[in-house]
Amino acid sequence: VNYCSECAGPVRLTVPPGDTLPRHVCDACERVFYENPKVVVGTLPVWEDRILLCKRAIEPRLGYWTLPSGFMENGETLEEGAIRETIEESGADVELIRPFAGFSITQVNQVYVLFLARMRHPGVAPGPETETARLVTEAEIPWAEIAFRAVAFCLERFVHARDDATFHLGAAERGPERP
Amino acid sequence: VNYCSECAGPVRLTVPPGDTLPRHVCDACERVFYENPKVVVGTLPVWEDRILLCKRAIEPRLGYWTLPSGFMENGETLEEGAIRETIEESGADVELIRPFAGFSITQVNQVYVLFLARMRHPGVAPGPETETARLVTEAEIPWAEIAFRAVAFCLERFVHARDDATFHLGAAERGPERP
Repeated sequence: VNYCSECAGPVRLTVPPGDTLPRHVCDACERVFYENPKVVVGTLPVWEDRILLCKRAIEPRLGYWTLPSGFMENGETLEEGAIRETIEESGADVELIRPFAGFSITQVNQVYVLFLARMRHPGVAPGPETETARLVTEAEIPWAEIAFRAVAFCLERFVHARDDATFHLGAAERGPERP
Repeated sequence: VNYCSECAGPVRLTVPPGDTLPRHVCDACERVFYENPKVVVGTLPVWEDRILLCKRAIEPRLGYWTLPSGFMENGETLEEGAIRETIEESGADVELIRPFAGFSITQVNQVYVLFLARMRHPGVAPGPETETARLVTEAEIPWAEIAFRAVAFCLERFVHARDDATFHLGAAERGPERP
């Protein structure tokens, strides 16, 4: 951040009065620009004994497998965002079962919120960010080719503790963001 | 958003190529400025048969009661943010029990994530945003003076379904943000 988005004045990093962390503050109009983590919402879609995975058609992690998910938008709920991203990335027609996992990724300032979901039918229609969407059994999960730690965490929890009603919580605090 | 924070060029609202929603885009350097919901993290602190509530010393909702919570910061996990906000607002020394509730507030583009927490001792030390922090029994909850819907939702779920292991999910999609 170099300039103020309101008045185009110069911005500097300083701790505002009453605050505890440095923020970008406009020298001219004194507006403070906060930066906070973004929420990534998505689903773990299930059809019979299979899970829907999406092969990424874009960077980062092009060619690796993920769960349908993406940035939550202003004006929508967690549930609405999860369903929208599932449709956009996979075309799957899902109903949410319950919130399943939360995962903090401090390196990139993201919080994943993933829902367990039931596919109403096995049809898919991958969007532009997805090379292919495929239903796989647990034994077929390509563990070495999973795109992100949050996705691996969610799949691992599904395989080992899907009937545990608690919301599974994890974090990638140290080391590389990718598994 | 009027100006680009990178180059101070003029910004206009347009749907970028491959996107589906209008974004603020810089005419000069083509940088896209995304706006997404912010996460509010906090706790429902419990000491014996009592809950810790904080009376707000600041607007909005000055003088109304809330749970210790605030904006999640970059570089921290959900858990770290919840504990930090609890200390900042109430001084309570808590250990998290489990993630308890998620609440989307589309009107203000916020997502609350609240943890059930155990106070290690009943001591409090309200911060500058809190007029007073008080331990109340369920019967003493001032329902008409609760600051925010997300807080009322969390308290209501605690009173009626605290032993339900699922993550309680709610939303304020319509009507005023405040109860």
